[in-house]
Amino acid sequence: MDGQLVDLMVIVVTLSMMLTPLTFVLNDALGRWLDPAPPVHYDSMEDAEEVPVIIAGFGRVGQIVGRLLNARRIPFTALDASADQVETVRRFGRTAYYGDASRLDLLRAAKADKARLLVVAIDDVEASVRTVQTARAHFPDLRIFARARNRFHAHRLMDLNVELIERETFLGSLDLARNVLEALGTPAPEAALVVERFRAHDERTLRRQHAVYHDEKQLIQTSKEAADELESLFESDRESSAAEGKPVFSPADVR
Amino acid sequence: MDGQLVDLMVIVVTLSMMLTPLTFVLNDALGRWLDPAPPVHYDSMEDAEEVPVIIAGFGRVGQIVGRLLNARRIPFTALDASADQVETVRRFGRTAYYGDASRLDLLRAAKADKARLLVVAIDDVEASVRTVQTARAHFPDLRIFARARNRFHAHRLMDLNVELIERETFLGSLDLARNVLEALGTPAPEAALVVERFRAHDERTLRRQHAVYHDEKQLIQTSKEAADELESLFESDRESSAAEGKPVFSPADVR
Repeated sequence: MDGQLVDLMVIVVTLSMMLTPLTFVLNDALGRWLDPAPPVHYDSMEDAEEVPVIIAGFGRVGQIVGRLLNARRIPFTALDASADQVETVRRFGRTAYYGDASRLDLLRAAKADKARLLVVAIDDVEASVRTVQTARAHFPDLRIFARARNRFHAHRLMDLNVELIERETFLGSLDLARNVLEALGTPAPEAALVVERFRAHDERTLRRQHAVYHDEKQLIQTSKEAADELESLFESDRESSAAEGKPVFSPADVR
Repeated sequence: MDGQLVDLMVIVVTLSMMLTPLTFVLNDALGRWLDPAPPVHYDSMEDAEEVPVIIAGFGRVGQIVGRLLNARRIPFTALDASADQVETVRRFGRTAYYGDASRLDLLRAAKADKARLLVVAIDDVEASVRTVQTARAHFPDLRIFARARNRFHAHRLMDLNVELIERETFLGSLDLARNVLEALGTPAPEAALVVERFRAHDERTLRRQHAVYHDEKQLIQTSKEAADELESLFESDRESSAAEGKPVFSPADVR
């Protein structure tokens, strides 16, 4: 069975629970009784017409976001290029549209003019960029968070001033590296700090690379661009290396 | 320019810094003077013949692991199916082999018998599983950490008792979801807790799904398997939902 299908089934089960009237009422009452925490600060959650979040792309990344929103009873509208996934989401009571999320009519149907946030979780770089471009042009008040496949995709999204860019394998890779360091004997607090420092350094490097990156020249001046980028990376790594030399652990931190 | 190429360039620059003799000596001396932290507990780092880590698959995930190891001066050997990437890694002094990492001769050439850890960072599910199978069969003492594409891939790796399985987009997706919750008004500490709870729940669900998953029956009994899995997910979500009702915030936590 495909992993994405399994992810969808998790949603299906979660949604079906929410929508089974008895379960819903009990769960709701129980929740109010047991949980004194303030609710999520969204004031029209009960109104199915006003959905705060649109998720464009309902694959591995979009499904996790959707499942988590659903667990918090925050409605969302899903857009996906797969008719099967749209069908499944619909059957369990959430709005979903089939098609290319960069189409203005699709975004209008999803009420992008009333939504607060568009999550672009499409893995295809060109489709993702097109979707952000359409949204930016027609819904200037809509906040946009996006999934990026790699550094190049991240730079394209930076060009469009996307508010939050999540490189899809970056955090997982850092977690894997942290575990490798620990397996080789690095104490856990030190490994965590090393990885956190590397994360911050790499994000600075990504922003710095973007400053010397020009989309139009990309295809015609590859070697020039590469040399510029290499130089910028060299400087960035040197600075980071100097900073790494500073003492950061007291013996108490390591233990 | 391709994002993976940029990632490689970051490695190239880092490696070139390490290997420029003057920079290396200065950096090393400076490091000893400034940093009283204990070194990584690996005692034969200087011996190029004994490399503690083999990274199979040097794409987006493997490169992050390699860059971080390199920053810590921990040698690694890279295996990749792309000749270009192998060439770049080699030019900067690290051992790298071109080819299918599931081939016994390649793993032998990488000295898998002397390595402590194999990081399988291959994105192709079948190639990844084959590599783990070869390593398991011929190097029983080698620890294995692996990247998984999705739940299905994770289950295949669980079948092979892989010690650590990192779903490549899972942590990134959770981080994206956490940012979405915050954008909708959930206070940061609450959003972090909600996401951490969901992570733990989803990992329990993944392990539970694995208990009812059988690789051989997968292709011939899809609907039966799906029904079993759905039932298991339903139970898992119900339990999680009940647990979620418990009060976990004091007003002090939220503020």
